[in-house]
Amino acid sequence: MSRFFSKTHANLTPYTPGEQPRGEKLIKLNTNESPFPPPQSVIAAIARVSSNLQLYSDPQGTELRAALAAYHGVAPEQISLGNGSDETLAFAFAAFGDAEHSFAFPDITYGFYPVFAALFKVPFTEIPLTDSFEIDFRDYLNLGKNIVIANPNAPTGITLPLGDIEQIIKSNPDNIVIIDEAYIDFAGEGASAVPLTARYDNLLVVRTFSKSRNLAGARLGYAVGNAALISDLETIRYSFNPYNINSLTLAAGAAALRENDYYAQNWAEIARTRSLTISGLRQAGLTVLPSAANFVFAKHPTLAGPDLLARLRERGFLVRNLGQPRIRDWLRITIGAAGDMEKLIETIKVIGG
Amino acid sequence: MSRFFSKTHANLTPYTPGEQPRGEKLIKLNTNESPFPPPQSVIAAIARVSSNLQLYSDPQGTELRAALAAYHGVAPEQISLGNGSDETLAFAFAAFGDAEHSFAFPDITYGFYPVFAALFKVPFTEIPLTDSFEIDFRDYLNLGKNIVIANPNAPTGITLPLGDIEQIIKSNPDNIVIIDEAYIDFAGEGASAVPLTARYDNLLVVRTFSKSRNLAGARLGYAVGNAALISDLETIRYSFNPYNINSLTLAAGAAALRENDYYAQNWAEIARTRSLTISGLRQAGLTVLPSAANFVFAKHPTLAGPDLLARLRERGFLVRNLGQPRIRDWLRITIGAAGDMEKLIETIKVIGG
Repeated sequence: MSRFFSKTHANLTPYTPGEQPRGEKLIKLNTNESPFPPPQSVIAAIARVSSNLQLYSDPQGTELRAALAAYHGVAPEQISLGNGSDETLAFAFAAFGDAEHSFAFPDITYGFYPVFAALFKVPFTEIPLTDSFEIDFRDYLNLGKNIVIANPNAPTGITLPLGDIEQIIKSNPDNIVIIDEAYIDFAGEGASAVPLTARYDNLLVVRTFSKSRNLAGARLGYAVGNAALISDLETIRYSFNPYNINSLTLAAGAAALRENDYYAQNWAEIARTRSLTISGLRQAGLTVLPSAANFVFAKHPTLAGPDLLARLRERGFLVRNLGQPRIRDWLRITIGAAGDMEKLIETIKVIGG
Repeated sequence: MSRFFSKTHANLTPYTPGEQPRGEKLIKLNTNESPFPPPQSVIAAIARVSSNLQLYSDPQGTELRAALAAYHGVAPEQISLGNGSDETLAFAFAAFGDAEHSFAFPDITYGFYPVFAALFKVPFTEIPLTDSFEIDFRDYLNLGKNIVIANPNAPTGITLPLGDIEQIIKSNPDNIVIIDEAYIDFAGEGASAVPLTARYDNLLVVRTFSKSRNLAGARLGYAVGNAALISDLETIRYSFNPYNINSLTLAAGAAALRENDYYAQNWAEIARTRSLTISGLRQAGLTVLPSAANFVFAKHPTLAGPDLLARLRERGFLVRNLGQPRIRDWLRITIGAAGDMEKLIETIKVIGG
């Protein structure tokens, strides 16, 4: 830290992203990436725009927003694009949070929410998950605070039924409810809160191309909501970085939305592998939460979380331990290729305990 | 605006980016883009990583930062990457500005500085340029405020000698001085303040690949400075969006740094065309400031700025009028391809006044 760093950031503890090993040959199950590459048409779309990079990207993201609007059955004015959904979430904290408008979210959830709150000086409350690591929607009724809920939640993988989400939105009409659907495509049809944006002006749904569109490295996220809410995000975006999405990523995103069959196959394959992984880990003696995401959250019967992580790493597997007190002994394990998950289960059985 | 938008943003007026026309066939001289494409090796580098986009980008930008460090003769810990230099500048306002640490910058300069200040609630002072639109460095001595100076300045194109810059840095040892060198590569050798970062711990130099590396559409900027200052920017970056640079752009940037001969030719060609453009516009009766950038700032003898802009647009040329009171009658005109600049001059002569 330099002597010039603003004292207002005294309590700012940055987010720790999962390790991105360089060079080492590891089976990477630590950052919830897809085991599948982007489709050829996405790669081709990137190649088409790459010779024209001397020109700025379209700050309005016209083509991509139109494609997203068509996909979700909303108007383009109901979509705001982010450099990954992290940026969109940051914009939402900046737009709707202030000293008088705090945020609430679960104690165990995406670890970036408290960081965004700290960065933008927004007070926040952490609401404990139940003992079974579930969100009890009643804790969020008539709360009178802005709310962020990841659905499915991370790192648990557990979903909240849409009816419960609607009650939360309805009972907090003077606050924003953000549903972070980073993993929703793995939860099956009908789980998304996007259709509710037509009925509730206080609902913002945030999505990402990172996981279910195999584009973590392209950085693309977005919010869907009432046009007035979206215009607020756009005000922040145009006050921070209007060209926040580069031309390559704009093209990749639009092309990805024309490949729904390919992705549907990927998601079905991940759901199959997830089911086999949960069974296998349980057979190996682990406790595994019911997951609707592309990862599972699991606890070894005898080994502490950091110990199992270290032993897996020695054997070539990278998984994630979030280190918070309540979940110190739990590991978040991405659903990778089926063969890699079989190897993981065998390895855990060999490690014993 | 929604009823949920924080009242703390009441004074926030977003930046207005230059128009990015879609479909229309226009000679685009309004956003200071390069008339040259990125080199083939950059396009090839993008293609190489595009099939691997399911994996996150390297949040540390290891390869690119090493390449930038080698290029500038500094350590990688002295480089912080941004999603365009706009993001890096925003991070700097967030890191070093607060109610007690205001910013100062010229009244006529890059229009985003007051927007960043407003977004992060940092008070600011605008210091008038001289009547000849120059920065008088004496206005910045012993100022006791953080300072941001674009060098060459935009939209004027005028440079401040390095000795003057050093005096500003030296006389404000307890404040940050940011030199925004978006256009420095067009100013010839020895104009950059980067070497001064070795001697002054309060100097941050911000650069971009947009203009002089023909990569406006890839979004890549960075800061060079003392390692402690850079670590502060990194704290903000990791609290906002650690994966702020996508894999395609990381690869493009590293490849671009291996093409210094190609870019040096581009810059020489732009300098030649700039010289011809300035002469031609002066012949046509316009007042043109001495520019060291890839644009010129010019005023017609009889036509108001917005009128000349409109007449040029009718004839297929897009230029920029910033609309501020002192420069209402001035147009900022990007140096494009030589043939296009000749056509522009002929067109202005035909328009008359």
